[in-house]
Amino acid sequence: MPDPCVDVLIASYLEQDLVERIAGCDPRIRVSYAPELLPLPRWHSDHVGVPRELTAGEHDRWTSMLRTADVMFDFDWRHPERTLEQSPKLKWIQATSAGAGQLIDKFGLSRAPLTVTTAAGVHADPLAEFALAGILHFARGLPRLIAARQSRTWRKQETTELAGRHALIVGAGKIGSRTAELLRCFSVTAGGVARNPRPAGAPFDSMTTTDRIAEHLPTADILVISCALTDDTRGLIGRRELAALPDGALVVNLGRGPIIDEDALAEALSTGRLDGAVLDVTSTEPLREDSPLWTADNVILSPHSAANVPSENGKVVDLFVENLGRFLSGDAALLNEFDFDAGY
Amino acid sequence: MPDPCVDVLIASYLEQDLVERIAGCDPRIRVSYAPELLPLPRWHSDHVGVPRELTAGEHDRWTSMLRTADVMFDFDWRHPERTLEQSPKLKWIQATSAGAGQLIDKFGLSRAPLTVTTAAGVHADPLAEFALAGILHFARGLPRLIAARQSRTWRKQETTELAGRHALIVGAGKIGSRTAELLRCFSVTAGGVARNPRPAGAPFDSMTTTDRIAEHLPTADILVISCALTDDTRGLIGRRELAALPDGALVVNLGRGPIIDEDALAEALSTGRLDGAVLDVTSTEPLREDSPLWTADNVILSPHSAANVPSENGKVVDLFVENLGRFLSGDAALLNEFDFDAGY
Repeated sequence: MPDPCVDVLIASYLEQDLVERIAGCDPRIRVSYAPELLPLPRWHSDHVGVPRELTAGEHDRWTSMLRTADVMFDFDWRHPERTLEQSPKLKWIQATSAGAGQLIDKFGLSRAPLTVTTAAGVHADPLAEFALAGILHFARGLPRLIAARQSRTWRKQETTELAGRHALIVGAGKIGSRTAELLRCFSVTAGGVARNPRPAGAPFDSMTTTDRIAEHLPTADILVISCALTDDTRGLIGRRELAALPDGALVVNLGRGPIIDEDALAEALSTGRLDGAVLDVTSTEPLREDSPLWTADNVILSPHSAANVPSENGKVVDLFVENLGRFLSGDAALLNEFDFDAGY
Repeated sequence: MPDPCVDVLIASYLEQDLVERIAGCDPRIRVSYAPELLPLPRWHSDHVGVPRELTAGEHDRWTSMLRTADVMFDFDWRHPERTLEQSPKLKWIQATSAGAGQLIDKFGLSRAPLTVTTAAGVHADPLAEFALAGILHFARGLPRLIAARQSRTWRKQETTELAGRHALIVGAGKIGSRTAELLRCFSVTAGGVARNPRPAGAPFDSMTTTDRIAEHLPTADILVISCALTDDTRGLIGRRELAALPDGALVVNLGRGPIIDEDALAEALSTGRLDGAVLDVTSTEPLREDSPLWTADNVILSPHSAANVPSENGKVVDLFVENLGRFLSGDAALLNEFDFDAGY
């Protein structure tokens, strides 16, 4: 008796060689991929893209592809909130983002009889790179060097260094760990903050739990937010927490905007109490028009694009192919399974 | 019979605790230190400082300190070219800079019956940090992010990354090696260029010699100059060499300005052929007033200050104390002995 086929629907744009890698990884896999029915990517590895108007015929084709899918690579771009009715056979969705919690809530998939795996880890390298680019920018006084060049000033002087500082990293997952690893290359010590107690160990010199964060803020020359947005982390870094940081501290947000009180942050930056902020995310995105962050010269602001690197799709597909093998053999848990209770 | 005393003259400003470390490292050492006779440092670890007018009495005191010195920490700030006559007992000078070649020529000390040790290595950490700050600045598109914030533009888009690039590092000494080490943390491969053949090995993925550099330029996404200025390296990176680099390459100079043809570099930057330059040194210092580099937005320009970090004096004294131990015991060669033939 032949093995049953597994219908894999690729629901966001992928390069052809990556589609072929998925199709070729097991003879039981039957890949459905119709890029002409998907949003047009605005860059390599854009998983949102510009939505298309589908004709009635195209609509029917997409609907029938959804109906037969056992596995989806990314969520349905049209009506994700109807996933359960549209795709009755669906067992598993491989998301293409690390922080899928908000999507899953929005799509009404919480506690669905469905496995969702996230792309956690895929973005660790580019996000940690961005963090270091921003941290070094301020730690090495690049704003001053740029201003001096523009005003044609040559003045030899003392410069500050990154080595010897201490970082507190809230969220000791893959993004936080990779950031800690890079910081340690520069002789920066890293304390990790996790939801549940765990022993210290590379790349973290020490570990604490989220509820004890207040004790550790006064020594955090660099505060890195790399956790998921949950009920526990929303507003975690408020006015009081920012005030507890040492003078001249740097704040990095790689997680989600609402984890930090953005008004309090903007204030501490404008008075010079904090040296700089490195933000890939903001409370509302796009950043609201009247935000003082637009004019803050000590802010590096990225429009939630720091992980949008050309290598992203290849890494998501690496993860997906590994997970497909596990899914088909059934003898190992899928990597990055979304935990509906924890919310990440 | 008691051991003879060794008269150590500290000839540039040092913090008191560091002076005491030197004085305390061996009972035979007699330290002379009169900060009131030395140039006033403009920052921590400034070894040039603002010269003082000495009274006749002060002049005599300084002259007699020079006369009895067996060892000097830094060169005489007043008449280094008269060192041999002023300090007839002098056997060794510990310099406080890594590139002492030009000073030694200027002071007429070449082939003097004198040992000079450099501070090579002391500046490796801060210079490599500066290199990475500048490389990440361009590799991660920070100029575009800064401009977008200033024009209040939020546009999600693809971003470039550092990982996966290749660097060619001309000068595989301590500064080049530390830069390679940091680049490798970011998954950048590093080829090293040395004067004489040597086997590849961490932190270099490959090694070549200075005369074969042309073969390696076309694959150098990042060109780092971290060698000494000698007859062999003056003008080493000319117009032709810059033209051989790939489009969008980055150029970093941590060595000395005259190693690169600065006009050709400015031209390649202004046309956008090269993505950016990260310069701690320029052909003439201060940079000449009509240099196009002042207005080049893709240049990070440091006024030869990237190594001027507060931790510098402590590291030079670590080295000096180690060398004093070797000098007194006589059973090991001094570290960083200046090679008058090689010129570094």
